[in-house]
Amino acid sequence: MVVRWDASIVDDLRLVEAEITKSVRSRQPLLTEIATHVINAGGKRMRPGIALLSFHSVGGKDKEKIIQLAAAFELIHSATLVHDDINDGADTRRGTIAAYRKYGLQRALIAGDFLFVQGFRLGGAMEAQEVVEMVAESCTAMAESEILQIEVERRSATPLDTYMSIIGGKTARPIEASARVGAYIGGGSTDEIEALGRFGLNIGYAFQIMDDILDLTGDRKTLGKPLGMDILDSKANLPLMIAMQGHYPGSDRIAEVFEKDRKTNEEINETLDLVQATDALDIARSQAKDLRDAALDALKAISPSKYKDSLIALAGTVLERTY
Amino acid sequence: MVVRWDASIVDDLRLVEAEITKSVRSRQPLLTEIATHVINAGGKRMRPGIALLSFHSVGGKDKEKIIQLAAAFELIHSATLVHDDINDGADTRRGTIAAYRKYGLQRALIAGDFLFVQGFRLGGAMEAQEVVEMVAESCTAMAESEILQIEVERRSATPLDTYMSIIGGKTARPIEASARVGAYIGGGSTDEIEALGRFGLNIGYAFQIMDDILDLTGDRKTLGKPLGMDILDSKANLPLMIAMQGHYPGSDRIAEVFEKDRKTNEEINETLDLVQATDALDIARSQAKDLRDAALDALKAISPSKYKDSLIALAGTVLERTY
Repeated sequence: MVVRWDASIVDDLRLVEAEITKSVRSRQPLLTEIATHVINAGGKRMRPGIALLSFHSVGGKDKEKIIQLAAAFELIHSATLVHDDINDGADTRRGTIAAYRKYGLQRALIAGDFLFVQGFRLGGAMEAQEVVEMVAESCTAMAESEILQIEVERRSATPLDTYMSIIGGKTARPIEASARVGAYIGGGSTDEIEALGRFGLNIGYAFQIMDDILDLTGDRKTLGKPLGMDILDSKANLPLMIAMQGHYPGSDRIAEVFEKDRKTNEEINETLDLVQATDALDIARSQAKDLRDAALDALKAISPSKYKDSLIALAGTVLERTY
Repeated sequence: MVVRWDASIVDDLRLVEAEITKSVRSRQPLLTEIATHVINAGGKRMRPGIALLSFHSVGGKDKEKIIQLAAAFELIHSATLVHDDINDGADTRRGTIAAYRKYGLQRALIAGDFLFVQGFRLGGAMEAQEVVEMVAESCTAMAESEILQIEVERRSATPLDTYMSIIGGKTARPIEASARVGAYIGGGSTDEIEALGRFGLNIGYAFQIMDDILDLTGDRKTLGKPLGMDILDSKANLPLMIAMQGHYPGSDRIAEVFEKDRKTNEEINETLDLVQATDALDIARSQAKDLRDAALDALKAISPSKYKDSLIALAGTVLERTY
């Protein structure tokens, strides 16, 4: 029997959804509509899930705060998705039309700001300075990595540690923050907070690397967007970078297309084929697996519980994801 | 002798600048550069000034928190300016090239998010929930009014109360929040907090109406931007709306140009002339004066001090402003 990773927190996640719905209710119906569009296109609720599971796995009792914070993480995440889509020129997000395509850049930009504010509002309504600082620090890291990502666009020779900084800031550290905040609010010990933070960080890295792999090999229907978006946008992507920087027969051509300002569909398909002819995808998958293992290893410090089992199950889904 | 309104808080404002400079320091130098560009183009520091003066005028003692909050208000204000410039397609801001023109839309969008985060970080680092809520509520109101402003673009028949809602959300309420937070942190009584809030709100309204007037009659050199931007962008502007909705000889033509998708320079100059041929500017100026008087009236509840004198002086500058 397949048990979903979030089976142990289904009721909690429902409360998080209610909190999110309440938070995006605005005196301007259009703002509610755009925010709801974005929230609904959001997907996995991984950040709230990890926050809740971390909370419970250290024996957290009073759920009210962590429900609010879990909602805050999802709202902030959604805000960055709206702004990312504007910056990436993405047409769709999980098969749904991107907010800025549907509502225009101006309205989407403001809806992103609104989601940020609502997230901070929930996150800032905590008496604990530590929590505000964790949330703010992860948001700062996100902005910094977005800038870095733009800096290295079209640079085929971007070092792998720069890549790790980028995905650390944009994906791994925000997920780490969800885990840390969950453990902190749940009353976890310093060791438990560290362990769950390490779990979140490594799962975040693994998740993003799988995201990169899916962009090059996924099923476009399941994915809800065209393949090769990172090639089109010349964005740092692990297997792509390995394939460009390795000494494969196609490396130079991949780099050439990557560095171009505009690419044709043919060039993108050609690049996808060239990458798939290397072992770059396998290398990237193996790195994702190592990171997943590091995440699981971190959980050794956590006592057994159904919530810990859920975290383990979640770690399992990361490598199996198809969208 | 002319005494500047901020003479009584010059040292405090210097501390606020230091706090802002510290806050925009990032691990990504480019992010620091863009944020600094925006902060330097910012101008009057009215929000920090009103927060500080409200704090002192109720006898506030420990300055540390209000310095941080004053910086937070300016950071959040700057964030909205970057995003506004993107949305308005503005070329310059106070004679300085707009951030998105200099650094590109993507980087400017992220720098705006970064400024938001840094503002919230400072504002959220307060133990008082009330303060976080005041800051968050004013940010929510800003987003709502920006959406409303876009909704009524090119609608010459926008009711004046909708106009008041727009400028309330985007200008008056954030300034009200600065005043309220200052009075609250300064330990003011409920009456004092209300009075200073009312001062800020009314000054905010008056300030924005003068802004509208300057867009139609100012000196383009002093202003640092071309005249008639609100005509070009078809944005709600009080004298423009009075001129369109009144029964002046030029009303229909003004409305016609206002409703156009694109306008020529000739049409904008023609519209400026037509507006100036009405008494709409005088009516708007008289409304600004009434609001300024309401602001001064609110100060009656505040005991005499050099800080109260500064607030009165500030109110005086609002009607005299040339940029």
